Amino acid sequence: MIKYPNGKSPTKNIITKKRITNAANRGMDLEADINLSNEYYKNTKRALITKRPTPINVVKVDYEKGARITDAYFEKQSTTDYNGVYKGKYLDFEAKTTNNKTSFPLNNISLHQIEHLEMVKNMGGYCFFIVQFSALNKVFLIDARVIIDFHQKQKRKSIPLAIFSEHGQELQVSFSPRINYLDAVDKLYQL
Amino acid sequence: MIKYPNGKSPTKNIITKKRITNAANRGMDLEADINLSNEYYKNTKRALITKRPTPINVVKVDYEKGARITDAYFEKQSTTDYNGVYKGKYLDFEAKTTNNKTSFPLNNISLHQIEHLEMVKNMGGYCFFIVQFSALNKVFLIDARVIIDFHQKQKRKSIPLAIFSEHGQELQVSFSPRINYLDAVDKLYQL
Repeated sequence: MIKYPNGKSPTKNIITKKRITNAANRGMDLEADINLSNEYYKNTKRALITKRPTPINVVKVDYEKGARITDAYFEKQSTTDYNGVYKGKYLDFEAKTTNNKTSFPLNNISLHQIEHLEMVKNMGGYCFFIVQFSALNKVFLIDARVIIDFHQKQKRKSIPLAIFSEHGQELQVSFSPRINYLDAVDKLYQL
Repeated sequence: MIKYPNGKSPTKNIITKKRITNAANRGMDLEADINLSNEYYKNTKRALITKRPTPINVVKVDYEKGARITDAYFEKQSTTDYNGVYKGKYLDFEAKTTNNKTSFPLNNISLHQIEHLEMVKNMGGYCFFIVQFSALNKVFLIDARVIIDFHQKQKRKSIPLAIFSEHGQELQVSFSPRINYLDAVDKLYQL
């Protein structure tokens, strides 16, 4: 395994060279790393997972400027960040990061997303969360069922770290793919 | 009223009942009807299919106005319009309309979309096209393979209507769901 200073690969620097490294993002950038992994999976024909664009509500378009949008705003994602196909099956997941050291706050997840994931699960799709505890430098993959249960039954406001160690799988960061989360998916769903 | 490049507003499916039927849209509005069908499939727990938002490249955001986007432009979709989960499997399709009476012009489909669909197919997902011949008031569901083959091997610029009648399935419009395309999917893939 090749380790780069800062935990960043050369390709990553090309894509994110404009990003300023400061105390706030000293660690890995979860979303960028998942995107790179998805590119790797696509190139190696293992899976095709795409990121849903953040929905934008367009208010005003200037046609004299060639359909340039002059007023719009970001909307909340009501589904999840990623979906795609793996071994013919439908796969759907959400990636989240917390600075918290002992638990994952549930206010990170909207009720719409919980409903969406529950529906996917009922329809036989695979759905899970990839959760990064940035202060601990740990990333877990956990079945959405665990999160949904916490959300609905426990009425807790956060999920203790121990739940992730017990019911989830810790993901290691490597060179290529950056985060080999599909190996964890294979194990979780016995594919 | 805001005009979008494809003539459709994001809220259109909500307000279709107010739609004025005139000479210009005497026929069905394919996208709106598919969206309504997907809502029906979701409510009846048959499938969960979502429309990918049109990708927008955000150039400028005014944070003083509360993260209001002040400059952005529409990008070309490099994937397809719809994807989701049906019977645990991954489903991916593109909806297209033509005014042509005898054939479907291939310049309606980008090379990126062909590549995307071919990849989905290789990974075991179900992918197809829903093509509307608006002047004929006919809608067909056809496996993406037929379209990909035409695109790659025949080097033709359009696909004759006869190919759709022979290799595709004609879809009927009804009340609810508006277009019951999943019955055609069942038949096509023997689900």
